Amino acid sequence: MSVQLFEQQLSVVNVGLASFAEAIRDAKAPVVHLEWSPPAQGDRTVGMQLAELLVDKRVDAANQEAVSRLYAGQPILRGVAPAREVIPGIEDRMLLHAGPPIAWDAMSGPMQGAIIGAILFEGWAATPDEARRLAAGGAIRLEPNHHHAAVGPMAGVTSPSMPVWIVENQTFGNRAFSSMNEGLGKVLRFGAYDDEVLGRLRWMRDVLGPAMARALDTGGPIEIAPLIAQALHMGDEVHNRNVAASGLLFRRIAPALVRTGMDASDVAAVLEFISGNDHFFLNVSMASCKAMLDAAHGVPASSLVTAMARNGVDFGIRVSGLGYEWLTAPAPMIDGLYFPGYSAADANPDLGDSAIAETVGLGGFSMAAAPAIVQFVGGSPQDAVAYSREMLQITLGTSPAFTLPALSFTGAPSGIDARLVVDTGVAPIINTGIAHRQAGIGQVGAGLVRAPMACFERAIARLAETLAE
Amino acid sequence: MSVQLFEQQLSVVNVGLASFAEAIRDAKAPVVHLEWSPPAQGDRTVGMQLAELLVDKRVDAANQEAVSRLYAGQPILRGVAPAREVIPGIEDRMLLHAGPPIAWDAMSGPMQGAIIGAILFEGWAATPDEARRLAAGGAIRLEPNHHHAAVGPMAGVTSPSMPVWIVENQTFGNRAFSSMNEGLGKVLRFGAYDDEVLGRLRWMRDVLGPAMARALDTGGPIEIAPLIAQALHMGDEVHNRNVAASGLLFRRIAPALVRTGMDASDVAAVLEFISGNDHFFLNVSMASCKAMLDAAHGVPASSLVTAMARNGVDFGIRVSGLGYEWLTAPAPMIDGLYFPGYSAADANPDLGDSAIAETVGLGGFSMAAAPAIVQFVGGSPQDAVAYSREMLQITLGTSPAFTLPALSFTGAPSGIDARLVVDTGVAPIINTGIAHRQAGIGQVGAGLVRAPMACFERAIARLAETLAE
Repeated sequence: MSVQLFEQQLSVVNVGLASFAEAIRDAKAPVVHLEWSPPAQGDRTVGMQLAELLVDKRVDAANQEAVSRLYAGQPILRGVAPAREVIPGIEDRMLLHAGPPIAWDAMSGPMQGAIIGAILFEGWAATPDEARRLAAGGAIRLEPNHHHAAVGPMAGVTSPSMPVWIVENQTFGNRAFSSMNEGLGKVLRFGAYDDEVLGRLRWMRDVLGPAMARALDTGGPIEIAPLIAQALHMGDEVHNRNVAASGLLFRRIAPALVRTGMDASDVAAVLEFISGNDHFFLNVSMASCKAMLDAAHGVPASSLVTAMARNGVDFGIRVSGLGYEWLTAPAPMIDGLYFPGYSAADANPDLGDSAIAETVGLGGFSMAAAPAIVQFVGGSPQDAVAYSREMLQITLGTSPAFTLPALSFTGAPSGIDARLVVDTGVAPIINTGIAHRQAGIGQVGAGLVRAPMACFERAIARLAETLAE
Repeated sequence: MSVQLFEQQLSVVNVGLASFAEAIRDAKAPVVHLEWSPPAQGDRTVGMQLAELLVDKRVDAANQEAVSRLYAGQPILRGVAPAREVIPGIEDRMLLHAGPPIAWDAMSGPMQGAIIGAILFEGWAATPDEARRLAAGGAIRLEPNHHHAAVGPMAGVTSPSMPVWIVENQTFGNRAFSSMNEGLGKVLRFGAYDDEVLGRLRWMRDVLGPAMARALDTGGPIEIAPLIAQALHMGDEVHNRNVAASGLLFRRIAPALVRTGMDASDVAAVLEFISGNDHFFLNVSMASCKAMLDAAHGVPASSLVTAMARNGVDFGIRVSGLGYEWLTAPAPMIDGLYFPGYSAADANPDLGDSAIAETVGLGGFSMAAAPAIVQFVGGSPQDAVAYSREMLQITLGTSPAFTLPALSFTGAPSGIDARLVVDTGVAPIINTGIAHRQAGIGQVGAGLVRAPMACFERAIARLAETLAE
């Protein structure tokens, strides 16, 4: 074929610096400008490391192994028990919290509030001041949930007496745990710790937890992946919108609970509590995601992201091939909608282990499933679809279990490759709640946030170092 | 402004006969061909009547009044009682059925099967043969549900002992009724009447009905419009997909049921029955739609459609300004997906009062809310959105209560104007189940069907006659 280039009218596609395109446009010639910036935000060292990792067959093979483990996960809800009886390594005078490790002094207001509340709930102190002194004096060990196969939303504080969901990944046998959801309003996970909060926690310990344990014993364990899959076809993205999933779980548990023979007024109170809490399923979902991702963790050379978590100060990720190292960066502020009377000035930076949902491909990655969530986090239904499409650029594939009707039943984008995040400059999108920055107040809004690019750049650097050894 | 028409290149839009466009295209001139056919399928008399009605200010004013009543409806679920105690005009040895009036001999297989089953259930006969003889001999009065402020899905047979939902339109005080949903498989409404079917009907009469009655007494009445609105944001179109709505109703009723103090094993059995039936809400929804539409009925000169119903042989509509007259045409076959082992050869023509959902703007009109339903009735999620957009052409407005996320929260197309149906040639789209054409078998599939255009043309003719009087 002969190309008669200079005899034709030229159509120019300009990539990168906009000034070149402007010059052509000034000369009245047709030009399309393509937004582009170099990977790793132009960092030459990371850029070179990324270039090597992108063609490293060891990484591809490791990712194949890791993501196939992720996709093979079959989380099953086995039961409920006090944390101290089931969470590995939890001890007396130890509290678990969300996100990467952080010391008391460095903690944000809502996390300090939740720590104070948990100390009061455990009876280790009688007043908030005393609790604060205990924590500040180092008498309480503070460790991340993620170091104990656990996850918790927002402050995510888990104490030994709290009842926790037990989820087992049937394919691999590993277990993961999460506290039970308290509902909205004044709740521990947003840093509130008044008598209403503590009273509810005691009722959850004495009535709700045992009731769920007995219902699961009576009715049998519940497979969670089909339930999540169904909820995605019912308008949930199963992070910030769990109304369908909570209803489906309720339908499964209610008849079994009645069959336990427990006191009818306790049964009714438990049913009313669950039916009044559209986020009840969130913690079950989080433990299920954790159980799926833990099975994909620890594959040498893999760049699969196996956790994203925030402690309200730092945002941390873990990568399958980097062991238990955290790659951190400052936690970003959230772009969201605020409850009446609150504004961005009240907001704490991003907080909670709940981004484990996005790490599996739910939440922000599955927003196409949940057009109605834009009323809660902002944007339009079209934006919701666009986010899911965008996330397909940074995942190793699509979930075989979770599909998105609005994208003609395409699988949810699942399995973040740290290489693709840095290469495309597309940071994972996360749907999340917004906590007040002070202890004791609670939730003030909800919105969207991007995982910090720096976490993924560090992962690339560390993976390159590891593979060069 | 001066128009220099003949100095410009002409761009032609051709409407109607394609041959004109072809001639222009042959001459290499640009032409856009628009599909168009005359209203009333070219029937000159109806076309002239329609032309008059379309500019008749009396019809516009009447429709404004009728549709404002429809939009103002507030259905509330008040209770459950045996049909004989609450349905106006129901008598001993009377059975109500779906669709317009029809005699025993003319009835389709599934409706005859349901009549036989109801006679056995009432104890008016001891064997199917005896029941058949009774019905054929005229010993049982057979009347449409719609003549008794009632509706029923598929065969829709309602007998005096059956428990029925009582829905009240709070705005206008009128009531509507519907039987309770039996679930899928072998059920009376699809024409099955074996011991399993009759045993379930007796259990519904003796346990389920009284349980729901007591739960509603204990927990109080339930507003249905907000529940439908929420279900539309959870992937239901609230006709052929009721999984979210059934779950929401279950969540409301379960705690109240436990608080009734009824026997725990009955309570558990009732909860298991409801939680295992994704269509449980259908009949509540139908009674709610009926209560809303009855309040909009009887406005002289109005062309608002207030009922669409099928008896398996005839498809009938009612129009607000035409009193209790039925405008009928042969019931069409359904274009759908069949259960394994069945095909179109097994199918009965369109059947049931459930098109009351579409008459309000749910079902096929709200398919944009339910992308996942295409797995059940056929087509793609894009088709689902297209149906909702298409129905906007034939409705007097959009529902203020029911919105569609996928259409940026536009209201559901609501309030069919018979004039617009005939004028546009767009027939209402209905999501529906497919019954086997023989008595005693049951459901064989589900799909989509268009209301027959002839019903609407007859309505135009009759309305023109009425207004000319």
